[in-house]
Amino acid sequence: MSFRLTILGTSSALPTSDRYPTAHVLNVHERLFLIDCGEGTQMQMRRYHIRFGKINHIFISHLHGDHFFGLYPLLSTFNLMGRKTPLHVYAPAPGGELIERHLTDFDIHLAFQLIVHTITGRSLKQILDDKRVEVYSFPLRHRITSYGFLFREKAPDRNIIREKISEHNLSVAEISRLKKGHDITRETGEVITCDEVTLEPRRTVTYAFCSDTGYFPGLARYVKGADLLYHEATFGDDNEVLAGKTGHSTARHAATVARDAGVKRLLLGHFSARYRSPAVLEEEARQVFAPTESAHEGVTYDIC
Amino acid sequence: MSFRLTILGTSSALPTSDRYPTAHVLNVHERLFLIDCGEGTQMQMRRYHIRFGKINHIFISHLHGDHFFGLYPLLSTFNLMGRKTPLHVYAPAPGGELIERHLTDFDIHLAFQLIVHTITGRSLKQILDDKRVEVYSFPLRHRITSYGFLFREKAPDRNIIREKISEHNLSVAEISRLKKGHDITRETGEVITCDEVTLEPRRTVTYAFCSDTGYFPGLARYVKGADLLYHEATFGDDNEVLAGKTGHSTARHAATVARDAGVKRLLLGHFSARYRSPAVLEEEARQVFAPTESAHEGVTYDIC
Repeated sequence: MSFRLTILGTSSALPTSDRYPTAHVLNVHERLFLIDCGEGTQMQMRRYHIRFGKINHIFISHLHGDHFFGLYPLLSTFNLMGRKTPLHVYAPAPGGELIERHLTDFDIHLAFQLIVHTITGRSLKQILDDKRVEVYSFPLRHRITSYGFLFREKAPDRNIIREKISEHNLSVAEISRLKKGHDITRETGEVITCDEVTLEPRRTVTYAFCSDTGYFPGLARYVKGADLLYHEATFGDDNEVLAGKTGHSTARHAATVARDAGVKRLLLGHFSARYRSPAVLEEEARQVFAPTESAHEGVTYDIC
Repeated sequence: MSFRLTILGTSSALPTSDRYPTAHVLNVHERLFLIDCGEGTQMQMRRYHIRFGKINHIFISHLHGDHFFGLYPLLSTFNLMGRKTPLHVYAPAPGGELIERHLTDFDIHLAFQLIVHTITGRSLKQILDDKRVEVYSFPLRHRITSYGFLFREKAPDRNIIREKISEHNLSVAEISRLKKGHDITRETGEVITCDEVTLEPRRTVTYAFCSDTGYFPGLARYVKGADLLYHEATFGDDNEVLAGKTGHSTARHAATVARDAGVKRLLLGHFSARYRSPAVLEEEARQVFAPTESAHEGVTYDIC
């Protein structure tokens, strides 16, 4: 099983010589989900060996350029690579309209189907029910409409106890039903319960992504118990007032959300260019929530 | 004096792991001119130490994304860096409209003046008369309206012969007029000719940029005698038919233009991702025009 996150960008709106704007790739059992798509995302994907063909869903948190400007060229690249598989993009309004218009303006004629899903809602809301994962959006508080995303792994099948297969002479169809948690009754009237022949599956995993947002205590409830929380930390304590004015968080805010939500680990990102190293941000966050680290581009974080 | 070109991108529409889309910086006596602005231009500018504040003019050859998608984020970055100096952008229609609309759509409020000049015309046409350089546009033949650019250094002042200063007891004002090529007549009736007291200035330098274009023999006349010609060479001989269909040139086409125009040197770029190395393109071009080389990102070419 794989459930891991690769960071492609850690800068805020102003990229630096070693920080690209926001883009993450979540790998859930080899199904890739791209989260935000700042300028240069496709270059970072190549640099870190992300397979373009495995991406079928792109989630855009909000319509600020540093989370979006890589999308047009990425769509163009998919097209030039001969993509035929439909692509789903999830974005707040008027994301779909902007994409549509821009493709026309720039003479890009997609040979694959692009399906844009408009994100709405004022609470946690399911936006994708995929084979292996459910994805939810939840509202943030930024200068414009902004959403966070929660990726919740679906419960895998229960594990069959090997010796029970021969003991009951179980058929493939019976095993399949039992692994799904159903009991079975045979024509003879014999009942075989899933509790007797299977074991609990391993526990499922959750990843929460908090994009641009000012701090608000209610945020914690959306990301409750996540195994990994990524949270923007544009500023440090020294710029708390600026954070408030610009609809951003400090590292301490991010850690407060992590602590209140009882998450396992916190990953900080979206650093202002004024912090040449995120060490000071990491330190301030750790005063509130110890299992904090700052995101590094090209690094893959296992979530389990 | 400096008149040199730094290559920031050599890929065609599909970037590769080591090739960015088109962007060049021409340095004319420390005035920087950005030519085209594909995705990631600002990252390449940082990587190769291009000073953002020295760019006041950006030339966009045509409105295909691989020549343009870096412009929005670059404008945003200028803004975040606190730019106050006006910025001139030269682009075919509807470039100005697209920029304007996109800034609004993406909540970018520029604190500096953006002046968009619409390029038109069916022949060589002056679009900028700068202190040290004149810039001309000329029409190319692509799938959409596309222009090339010619940068012609202005004639520098003539060189004063030192001993003539004391011999004639020349004043600063007199020297200034003589260096501009004027003779002077003193109140006494004495005539001092610029031929007697000054020497010819060094010859001026010309750079020609040919963006996306199918081959046409008339192109050579626009770039006649350039010291350096950059010409797209998307394909090799093996894809000549495809070049024709897509409105692009082969390396041999580029070399034919260079030869017919009698330029000094030819630089090839805009390579299709199918050529992992441009060596074969370089070789095909050299069969027609020997002083050819392929452009390399991050390399600065002195033009003189």
